[in-house]
Amino acid sequence: MKPPDIQDIEAAADRLSGHAVHTPLLENPALNEQVGARILLKAETLQRTGSFKFRGAFNFLSQIEPETRATGVVAYSSGNHAQGVAAAAKIFGIPATIVMPADAPAMKIENTQSYGANVVTYDRRNEDREKIAADIAGRHGATLVPPYDHPWTIAGQGSVGLEIAAQCAERDAQPDAVLVCCGGGGLTAGIATALADRIPTASVHTVEPDGFDDTRRSLDAGSPVANDMNATSICDALLAPAPGEITFAAMREHNVTGLAVSDSAVRAAVAYGWRVLKLVLEPGGAVTLAAILDGVFDARGKTVVATLSGGNVDAETFRMCLEEA
Amino acid sequence: MKPPDIQDIEAAADRLSGHAVHTPLLENPALNEQVGARILLKAETLQRTGSFKFRGAFNFLSQIEPETRATGVVAYSSGNHAQGVAAAAKIFGIPATIVMPADAPAMKIENTQSYGANVVTYDRRNEDREKIAADIAGRHGATLVPPYDHPWTIAGQGSVGLEIAAQCAERDAQPDAVLVCCGGGGLTAGIATALADRIPTASVHTVEPDGFDDTRRSLDAGSPVANDMNATSICDALLAPAPGEITFAAMREHNVTGLAVSDSAVRAAVAYGWRVLKLVLEPGGAVTLAAILDGVFDARGKTVVATLSGGNVDAETFRMCLEEA
Repeated sequence: MKPPDIQDIEAAADRLSGHAVHTPLLENPALNEQVGARILLKAETLQRTGSFKFRGAFNFLSQIEPETRATGVVAYSSGNHAQGVAAAAKIFGIPATIVMPADAPAMKIENTQSYGANVVTYDRRNEDREKIAADIAGRHGATLVPPYDHPWTIAGQGSVGLEIAAQCAERDAQPDAVLVCCGGGGLTAGIATALADRIPTASVHTVEPDGFDDTRRSLDAGSPVANDMNATSICDALLAPAPGEITFAAMREHNVTGLAVSDSAVRAAVAYGWRVLKLVLEPGGAVTLAAILDGVFDARGKTVVATLSGGNVDAETFRMCLEEA
Repeated sequence: MKPPDIQDIEAAADRLSGHAVHTPLLENPALNEQVGARILLKAETLQRTGSFKFRGAFNFLSQIEPETRATGVVAYSSGNHAQGVAAAAKIFGIPATIVMPADAPAMKIENTQSYGANVVTYDRRNEDREKIAADIAGRHGATLVPPYDHPWTIAGQGSVGLEIAAQCAERDAQPDAVLVCCGGGGLTAGIATALADRIPTASVHTVEPDGFDDTRRSLDAGSPVANDMNATSICDALLAPAPGEITFAAMREHNVTGLAVSDSAVRAAVAYGWRVLKLVLEPGGAVTLAAILDGVFDARGKTVVATLSGGNVDAETFRMCLEEA
């Protein structure tokens, strides 16, 4: 399968209209002054289900043939794709089964169940979630909804890029760079494709947690490299084992480059979100802000868009970030 | 002095342009579904200094004659007006002294100092903050910046109402009612004046904490009634002793009516902000949401704008809200 093109992304945006939230592009004077830059925050934390994942899931489900819908959908996810698929499935009246790691944040599991989805848990270190999901799909004839490596998923996430471009134009901002929180690369691939059409002068960069910087290393190497899955990070949303085939191809095509941040920089960014921005960020949704605040990305003098990809964080983790920052 | 009229508010909005944040009017599908209404959230939590107070302070300071500026400004405030005045004074290069209760949230005191203001604390139960501020103003020839009961302050806050009207029009929303977090009534007076011109069909309602519902009782009685100052509430921003003369006159003229909510409903609203909306709300900034979620205001079937007036909350108070909700 090929990556989506700009028309696919425009079609996805049309399907999402009236269902997804048109999230604001926020600007905070204190952040601008502190960094010495113009930072525009694309707050997908304010998206339906608390993360951008609803976009890709809804766009995917909307293209399942009506006669196939009754057999349901299956997805595997650490939590945000789970909620996105569950919420979209509820809208379409499609039964949903979601395979989630047993150590996923309780809030993500509870929210997924709240949309009526059936949650099946697995051991993230010893079991293969793709196999579990494929088995369930096979048994029930259900459609597997990939978390990132599918053109329909990527096209849905790409609608974020169209909104960024329109919102930058509205306020006469010409971004030099766009930073994207990166797990499997679906959001980055979609945004990079949209911006290659709308703002070709802006560079696009993934931000990953240290130890899960597979995308950065893959882009540097020119071919996919996997993570050591014994690594750990507070960024539960960004622990994908390797870039997807399609997402990697799209990111390569659009000259994306990668960055990585430490967990301590992420905790500080979550705390900054609470203290200064007044936004609830989950660790994985704060890596772009961490890259800017920590200087991993030198934003000084630039106009930079940072996606804040999600805000689904357990109280315990949130407290820990506020205390340690 | 007379309340500001719509031209005064439009002039204030012009002065604020480029200095205050044009805060988003947010909509959350989960909240809409839960309440059975269309709820539009005017997120002044995302304003410069974390509350709407910057607007009134900036508009006031911009009208101090240049030759008077060098002698400085003085303000008394539980914390949000303090930050607003301090931040505006820094922009104009005016020395600022702020009189704050010793038991104000540490974050509010620290933030006020961070703008370079000199903070003087007092005992909220045994000392008269207005006298302390007047003494300081008298000694230094400084200009007192009233927290709410002045036409310039009210006009600045009224710019929130102009934005609400424009943002509702952009999305074809016709609000039936607008709920405003209320301490001394400056924000309500400003919004009610703006909306009487822009959306005269919308009713405007104050929301106060139980025990500090002076505005509600005053509007019911037709003349100002004070609070029992031995009452306590978690809403540190809304503990004004009585409505202002000018704010009360404006609220009466525009047929504002009042509501009150319990501290437990406020804690639940702060927790809801964190869990569902992904917004950091301080207790006083969440009373409108509390009124809707708790059913004190019956929003069902209506289009309702709720102001979220501030997000400056200490970690300890925030944790307590998350735990008890």
